[in-house]
Amino acid sequence: MLKFSDRAYYLPSSPIRKLAPYADAAKAAGKHVYHLNIGQPDIPTPPEFFDAFQKADVKVLAYSPSAGTTGLRNEIANYYDRLGYSLDIDQILVTTGASEAISFIVAAICNPGEEIIVPEPFYANYHAFAVASGAEVRTVSSTIENDFALPSIEAFKDQIHSKTRAIMICNPGNPTGVVYPREALQQLVQLAVENDLYLIADEVYREFVYDGAEHHSVLGIPGAESHVIVVDSISKRFSACGARIGCIISRNQQLLDVAMKMAQARLCPPAFGQIGAEAVYQLPQSFYDGIVAEYKARRDLVKAAVSEIDGAFCPEINGAFYAMVKLPVESTEHFCQWLLEEFDFDGATVMMAPGAGFYASRDRGLDEVRIAYVLNQTDLAAAMECLKQGLVAYQNREK
Amino acid sequence: MLKFSDRAYYLPSSPIRKLAPYADAAKAAGKHVYHLNIGQPDIPTPPEFFDAFQKADVKVLAYSPSAGTTGLRNEIANYYDRLGYSLDIDQILVTTGASEAISFIVAAICNPGEEIIVPEPFYANYHAFAVASGAEVRTVSSTIENDFALPSIEAFKDQIHSKTRAIMICNPGNPTGVVYPREALQQLVQLAVENDLYLIADEVYREFVYDGAEHHSVLGIPGAESHVIVVDSISKRFSACGARIGCIISRNQQLLDVAMKMAQARLCPPAFGQIGAEAVYQLPQSFYDGIVAEYKARRDLVKAAVSEIDGAFCPEINGAFYAMVKLPVESTEHFCQWLLEEFDFDGATVMMAPGAGFYASRDRGLDEVRIAYVLNQTDLAAAMECLKQGLVAYQNREK
Repeated sequence: MLKFSDRAYYLPSSPIRKLAPYADAAKAAGKHVYHLNIGQPDIPTPPEFFDAFQKADVKVLAYSPSAGTTGLRNEIANYYDRLGYSLDIDQILVTTGASEAISFIVAAICNPGEEIIVPEPFYANYHAFAVASGAEVRTVSSTIENDFALPSIEAFKDQIHSKTRAIMICNPGNPTGVVYPREALQQLVQLAVENDLYLIADEVYREFVYDGAEHHSVLGIPGAESHVIVVDSISKRFSACGARIGCIISRNQQLLDVAMKMAQARLCPPAFGQIGAEAVYQLPQSFYDGIVAEYKARRDLVKAAVSEIDGAFCPEINGAFYAMVKLPVESTEHFCQWLLEEFDFDGATVMMAPGAGFYASRDRGLDEVRIAYVLNQTDLAAAMECLKQGLVAYQNREK
Repeated sequence: MLKFSDRAYYLPSSPIRKLAPYADAAKAAGKHVYHLNIGQPDIPTPPEFFDAFQKADVKVLAYSPSAGTTGLRNEIANYYDRLGYSLDIDQILVTTGASEAISFIVAAICNPGEEIIVPEPFYANYHAFAVASGAEVRTVSSTIENDFALPSIEAFKDQIHSKTRAIMICNPGNPTGVVYPREALQQLVQLAVENDLYLIADEVYREFVYDGAEHHSVLGIPGAESHVIVVDSISKRFSACGARIGCIISRNQQLLDVAMKMAQARLCPPAFGQIGAEAVYQLPQSFYDGIVAEYKARRDLVKAAVSEIDGAFCPEINGAFYAMVKLPVESTEHFCQWLLEEFDFDGATVMMAPGAGFYASRDRGLDEVRIAYVLNQTDLAAAMECLKQGLVAYQNREK
């Protein structure tokens, strides 16, 4: 019999995409589906992105250097410089999305059976990238009641043992929307240094912070230059998810050398995306201000809508464009599927990502959903009304 | 001390790119470098590729479906249908280049320590993708004197043991230019079936066959539908290496389900490349005829030039756009570096890939180079003259 690897069985299915067949069926049946399940913004990709390719007038869409074009790496360095983080372009390795960046990092640092500590709930694909390298994710719990604040340093310490290789955070958080204060990051850096661990920070939502919250990159915490690895991406920042351009940033040259060997094996990141990315990294602060104001308004809308639903709870959200919301149902997995299969309100329904998929612990997140506020405010309001009406109908159905 | 994974050390450096720093230095010193080291064609990407993106008038460069767009998968199926291979679009998974396709396949079928048998010399990155999953490459030898013909089935049999999971071939061959006859493929298929092995065929150079040689895909050999996995790519076919669009083709649904979990974790292949690829897969046969005629003329030029060099040997080449050439030097690695560092002919030099990097056996290929005939005939002739003059100068230097 033909065999598969062990990882073939352990690889999780995406919680964000697993309900897709039900959404397809709903659409085929004529329903409109509001997609709050996936972090795919509706914000237009800046025209500068597409214009750059016109201007480049490419005749042969050739391989780029494996580490990315010098032009793009320079613009990424300039962008970080404006944020107050000084980087040499050799400290920037362009990847095919943040996904590839995480894959490279895990493969570089973890042998099979070695572990990465991640606060849960966490971006579900971290688990898949760990499994691909045979590594394991060990979690420390954050809770919706506590606004998903970083767990105590003692909780992290309790999980460190001889097989631990790294701590990984997402800041601002997907799926939580949490923004970690500088003091919390300092404690993590200290813990990483004391225990010879890498501190991997996924900072792709860096700009999306609200209510005067300030984002602090781990790049700005002194004393851990070799330990810190940042994962970044243009997908959300510039609404260019399909470009598949991300990067690894580190001051650990040995780590970058290993990642470079992997980068050379896969030849190069997408050429078109790099040309566009080089252009949009030059956009002024006003570009970010406009986008952030829009997301803030959407967040306010989601929070207000949830507050009107009996038994629902939305924690404080200071960043990214997600809300983990507690709903008055036993199983959001069942409810989300039911919304697609059995429900409509004026011919529309809403798709969300069941919360359990973002937890590694079996019994957690069952009554939570992740809502990605990636629709314009009119559609978002309609989607939240759908959710509200759907909950009523679902509860009546249960009686 | 911060640790790295074992694979971080085992990952090979790319033999195709490792001389790059010497090439950069040569250019900085004002030399022109003819690049015969890398399979980056100078053939223009078809204008239809770029026009498609114009017509699509994309506003938000969004994620595509993880398996690729339906439009592209349909056109790939149509392309295979014209070749005489009937495929359902569910048997096609679009990947970020053939590189990702190979990574997914190895990860899906090999546990650490399990093995894939590959005829050597082979495309060096197969080794890197195997190491990334902890798998091992076991080789059977083909030889330049025998025009790199497929080794005997007995030679393959000798390498099969309990940890063997697959046989992998590249047809037409990179770096060899060999095209395997149908009978040889039939024998491999039979061997795979008898031993419960996958047969992975990298067929990205499918169209590039010369002198009336015919390419046979393993998809057309009956009796091994579950065993056969084809790796494909638009990079060479449409001179669109930077697009990073490839695919996995298989009639083994279980394998595709596993690959799909990996595909979902990395979200999607590049969006722009998919739009362009969908257009160029619709090009008529005349497109291929023109390209193939050009490569055939280049192959003739390389063969003729090598035949004029004392002590050099070029085997029969019926496909792809590479020649493994034996040179009258002890170490082509030293010679290739010397060409970049110490030599010029009328201000120009030539860069080639040392042959040893394409062999896993330690003592093989030391006097071979891989020449990629990816330059127009004028430049290619000049590059071959450079090589000829370089050899004379190198031999005089040794006296």
